[in-house]
Amino acid sequence: MVNPRVYLAGPDVFLPDPHAIAASKKALCAAHGFEGVFPLDVDLDLDGLTPRDQALKISAENEALIRSCQLVIANMTPFRGPSADVGTAYEMGFARGLGLPVFAYTNTSARFAERVSAAIPGGARRRADGVLLDDRGMSIEPFELRDNLMLEGAVAASGVQIAAHAADEDRLFTDLAAFEECVRCAQALLRA
Amino acid sequence: MVNPRVYLAGPDVFLPDPHAIAASKKALCAAHGFEGVFPLDVDLDLDGLTPRDQALKISAENEALIRSCQLVIANMTPFRGPSADVGTAYEMGFARGLGLPVFAYTNTSARFAERVSAAIPGGARRRADGVLLDDRGMSIEPFELRDNLMLEGAVAASGVQIAAHAADEDRLFTDLAAFEECVRCAQALLRA
Repeated sequence: MVNPRVYLAGPDVFLPDPHAIAASKKALCAAHGFEGVFPLDVDLDLDGLTPRDQALKISAENEALIRSCQLVIANMTPFRGPSADVGTAYEMGFARGLGLPVFAYTNTSARFAERVSAAIPGGARRRADGVLLDDRGMSIEPFELRDNLMLEGAVAASGVQIAAHAADEDRLFTDLAAFEECVRCAQALLRA
Repeated sequence: MVNPRVYLAGPDVFLPDPHAIAASKKALCAAHGFEGVFPLDVDLDLDGLTPRDQALKISAENEALIRSCQLVIANMTPFRGPSADVGTAYEMGFARGLGLPVFAYTNTSARFAERVSAAIPGGARRRADGVLLDDRGMSIEPFELRDNLMLEGAVAASGVQIAAHAADEDRLFTDLAAFEECVRCAQALLRA
């Protein structure tokens, strides 16, 4: 039986050595009966293209990679703000639109409302009805989740919960404990 | 002929008066032959549910709303950081996975790399090969786009570009000039 292919979504592609994290994740996938597929696993000829056309070619190739996979494991660790990387969020949605299961992890234990509040100069304030507001008066989701409810819903609809592990700050984007929990969970659910 | 349904994705739902922006967007849609569908257009009974189950019910209902639409217009204005709202990014991906066209707008004229650099304490630094790095040493996409390449790719694959308008700071999430440009563009492309 061919190992199911797992698309490895996340801001990992922006790390100083993305190929190192790709190799580590693929080894963990292989150890649990999956083939890990990294967004950089494409042989792109970008020569002569404008920066915009390079980007659009990468986007199209990544969508094709997701279509070639049977599931997604997404790194939802907050990236340059209180929420996950938007490219990762997009790919989670794309996979769900295709009907694929989406597993996800985060390397922080702080809840979404807590992280948003911490990111606001002066902190959040509370409206008379109890709803937390940011510095623009926009409401902060009160659902005790790990991120925006659409992301949490995608993972829940796949039959699992977001794996969370409080990684050391200097290993925020490289710690793989929660990622491995996702792989084990996928093995239990999909390869049983 | 029934008007095509447009799902109105965006962080607009978090505004102090989301129903006011919903009404304005729906009026602009109707004026151009579309039916605007806002994420809050659901009659949800959340009584007795835990906060988590409330969130999951809203998520499922929003996905059902997107499935009931023929296109999406997404508000990609940067939200609580240099990128779009992650819930909006998720919905753009979900729509593309379903094969729907996705139009989008942003109420800022600053490019992505410029916004990321501005959000980093001390600014971005440049690697020897010219790539911009953030304060974690993670690379900043060099493609002169408006946001992460997956979002830009989704809009380009739909046959359009992201509409951009430099709104006044106090109308960052309520100015509808760029939104209206999307509606006109959708009318020209889909209702011609």
